[in-house]
Amino acid sequence: MTVHKQAMTEKLSPSGDFLDAALALLGPRGLIRDPDLVEPWLTDWRGRYTGRALALAAPGDTAELSALIKLCAHYRVAVVPQGGNSGMVGGATPDAQGHQLLLSLRRLNQIKAIDVNARQVTCGAGVVLQTLHEEAAKHDLRFALTLGGKGSATVGGLISTNAGGTQVLRHGTMRKQVLGVEAVLADGSIFSALTPLKKDNRGFDLKQLLIGSEGTLGVVAAATLRLLPAIADRVVVWAGTSSLPTARALLLHAEAALGDALEGFEVLPQSCLEAVLELLPDARAPLADAHPWHALIEVVADRAGAAALAGRVEAMLSEAFEAGLVADAAIAANEAQAEAFWLIRESISPAERAQGPAMQHDISVPVERMPDFVATAVPIIEAHWPGTRAIAFGHLGDGNVHFHVIAPPGVDRAVWEAGDGTAISHEVYDLVVAWHGSISAEHGIGQTKRDELARLGDPVALELMRRVKAALDPLGLLNPGKLVPPRTDTLADTPADSGAILAPASANA
Amino acid sequence: MTVHKQAMTEKLSPSGDFLDAALALLGPRGLIRDPDLVEPWLTDWRGRYTGRALALAAPGDTAELSALIKLCAHYRVAVVPQGGNSGMVGGATPDAQGHQLLLSLRRLNQIKAIDVNARQVTCGAGVVLQTLHEEAAKHDLRFALTLGGKGSATVGGLISTNAGGTQVLRHGTMRKQVLGVEAVLADGSIFSALTPLKKDNRGFDLKQLLIGSEGTLGVVAAATLRLLPAIADRVVVWAGTSSLPTARALLLHAEAALGDALEGFEVLPQSCLEAVLELLPDARAPLADAHPWHALIEVVADRAGAAALAGRVEAMLSEAFEAGLVADAAIAANEAQAEAFWLIRESISPAERAQGPAMQHDISVPVERMPDFVATAVPIIEAHWPGTRAIAFGHLGDGNVHFHVIAPPGVDRAVWEAGDGTAISHEVYDLVVAWHGSISAEHGIGQTKRDELARLGDPVALELMRRVKAALDPLGLLNPGKLVPPRTDTLADTPADSGAILAPASANA
Repeated sequence: MTVHKQAMTEKLSPSGDFLDAALALLGPRGLIRDPDLVEPWLTDWRGRYTGRALALAAPGDTAELSALIKLCAHYRVAVVPQGGNSGMVGGATPDAQGHQLLLSLRRLNQIKAIDVNARQVTCGAGVVLQTLHEEAAKHDLRFALTLGGKGSATVGGLISTNAGGTQVLRHGTMRKQVLGVEAVLADGSIFSALTPLKKDNRGFDLKQLLIGSEGTLGVVAAATLRLLPAIADRVVVWAGTSSLPTARALLLHAEAALGDALEGFEVLPQSCLEAVLELLPDARAPLADAHPWHALIEVVADRAGAAALAGRVEAMLSEAFEAGLVADAAIAANEAQAEAFWLIRESISPAERAQGPAMQHDISVPVERMPDFVATAVPIIEAHWPGTRAIAFGHLGDGNVHFHVIAPPGVDRAVWEAGDGTAISHEVYDLVVAWHGSISAEHGIGQTKRDELARLGDPVALELMRRVKAALDPLGLLNPGKLVPPRTDTLADTPADSGAILAPASANA
Repeated sequence: MTVHKQAMTEKLSPSGDFLDAALALLGPRGLIRDPDLVEPWLTDWRGRYTGRALALAAPGDTAELSALIKLCAHYRVAVVPQGGNSGMVGGATPDAQGHQLLLSLRRLNQIKAIDVNARQVTCGAGVVLQTLHEEAAKHDLRFALTLGGKGSATVGGLISTNAGGTQVLRHGTMRKQVLGVEAVLADGSIFSALTPLKKDNRGFDLKQLLIGSEGTLGVVAAATLRLLPAIADRVVVWAGTSSLPTARALLLHAEAALGDALEGFEVLPQSCLEAVLELLPDARAPLADAHPWHALIEVVADRAGAAALAGRVEAMLSEAFEAGLVADAAIAANEAQAEAFWLIRESISPAERAQGPAMQHDISVPVERMPDFVATAVPIIEAHWPGTRAIAFGHLGDGNVHFHVIAPPGVDRAVWEAGDGTAISHEVYDLVVAWHGSISAEHGIGQTKRDELARLGDPVALELMRRVKAALDPLGLLNPGKLVPPRTDTLADTPADSGAILAPASANA
């Protein structure tokens, strides 16, 4: 079943012809070859991968994007779609061969329409999340999803990775925010489903297929997203608790007491707080004493509920104290303090990176099992790998924590990551699978977790993915080497392998 | 690109071998050939299609279902999955050739598990909707979706058609209720994704692909569904209004006043009420006078909100009266009266069928445009087709109405439906498309709307569907002739055409 990869390479036009054609199509603003301008985009957010590219293409609208993809199909040039380049799994970084085209969607950054009554916004894939927030606010609306990288992440990237964030507890993942999508497919055709109908049963939900497909089935060009009424008021609480099970009990209590008003519930252990305080000289511990676990709780209200909000939160906390769920708590006195609380949470990853090498795992298990998972996994890992420290923090209410294993002091980063660190990750993922969890709760698979997905994924699901991938991208041009694991019997390292396996005879058109 | 359909027919084992093997696999309880027992299932709910089948297969569990599908793949026998046989578009009726296996999922009717805390239920595809309601109620929970055919419709059918119903306004379609799915694919392999994780980004959302795929991509065997807290109280209101735009204004008012408490909002014109009163001798008009339009409004509360419910509804109605949105209203005095109100709504279709032939269209347009659409479409149709009456009723809040065109008195049903009726449907669907709507809001495509989908559907979306279908069912064995329109350049009437177009050379295994 191997397709003639050599033949495909031989058929590749000299890249000069392609680049000339691309330049003619996009103009100098849309096709960048100056290495100084391209280079910053060739390394991923975490600094883990650096690739090379034929060029950086930046089409100015959907029509240009469509024409470009047609050109790429003709010349058999693979594309690597990229938004804000803030992904966590190397999904937007080209490989090291230099034959791939880095495809930036950043110029597709128009807010095309806001329908205030219907609470929807239609915008290009290149719109930055922060910009979306600001645009919605102008109309007394808000976009539910937020995450640490909001100053860089783009709508197209958020859709392609089905991004999560801190508001999933209340509002769901990116998938839930998407009402319509416009995407360019592997042959350059435009799949346009931007106008949302509340009920529409005209076939397979292809929009859903594209969401979370990490650029491997189509390139998102625009989307219609749902908006919510603006928050009139919010209360942010920092609570100290004695254990993770107690934190979960606090979460259940807060949900029961506050219902829809509970927007976010994040947890972190004392060690994470201390790491952040080390990193950020101006940051202050919210509470006077240390506590084994901390919870960051956000409660919101619209206009109707604003007046009663503080009282509701105080009542909830009061009951929590009485029930022994909380040892101490601080309610942010104003927006600045609320932002300061959130900054601590958002700084955990950088703070920990500053302390030394660590393997980072974005995992989920069934929600109610998370405290038990952490209590079980931490000692197992620390016992097997002496000198390591395993910590968990994050979205307790979603069953999604970031499970990081910090290297023993003094190791060489590259050596440790490639050696023990990789073995540690395998062990963590084995544990997650044993607990019926996911090895990628929100960050996606990209290139980082593709091998683990091949190793641990359900074979039936993987085969389905390969077939769908082959059907939509028979030439393997859309983000090859990402997400879709090749069959283990034909494991290959060529860029086209993830799509080429089932390419029909007609591929050589 | 035509695959050798003749060759496939020649390769078909004599059906005797297949039936022997199927009987050996399923036992006499699982393979029924007695025509008297099979016949009731060969005609669709609306009495529009009657097919023939090799036999009626009724596997007892997922393992049997998987083995049966493998057998079918081996013998190239196409299957027509069927649940309660209550679909509206002939999707569960075999063709007239008699080579297809009618595949009943009704024996997969176990409630496997209810998790009261997590509010989830896992059950077989054959569980009847009414049973699901009753089971949930035992645990003080409820399943959000309900529709007229609840005594017959099964979970598998609801999933495969992404059923709608009267609670979509508040709770969304079936898609929103599905947390996990187990399905048997075309090669007999089992895609098992029953355990829901709140966050899981391990690739394409294949579950979403299966939902609404009408049995053409896989056979749903089981599902995990979300449940809601049981309703503690409900108030049902029947209101008379002067026009459809006024009814919509009333809807917006009710939404603003009642928020999440508003569960349903259905509209019907006076003529529909009169038709029902003719059909049901015991039914009574809820209001003293006639009104151009009627709205059926359901408001619910959980325990916390039950005490305040009546007051909230009365306040909402009071304001509606003052604003001129309501001419008269009756609040159901008790559950019996509430049920009586709903019975009127649920009896509209049968009442109208009793009056004579009609073409029925389940359509949606953008929500806010529905009143204008009806005001425009009704006179257009009635002018073009003298003697017809066009009526609209249904789920105003979802932008989904049932748009029925009643034949002039005295026509022969079959003649009219095949002639003028069909032309009328084309015109209605053309209007819907011009208004950016859907020709199938909730009923799906089945066989009834496949040609119209081919004519009116977005070519890019249709091509995507064909490719996905070919990838997942290369032999074209799953519900051929349904949903997926063949390419117009190779229009064929063989049962296998929808899948055979892109069947790879390896199909003749």
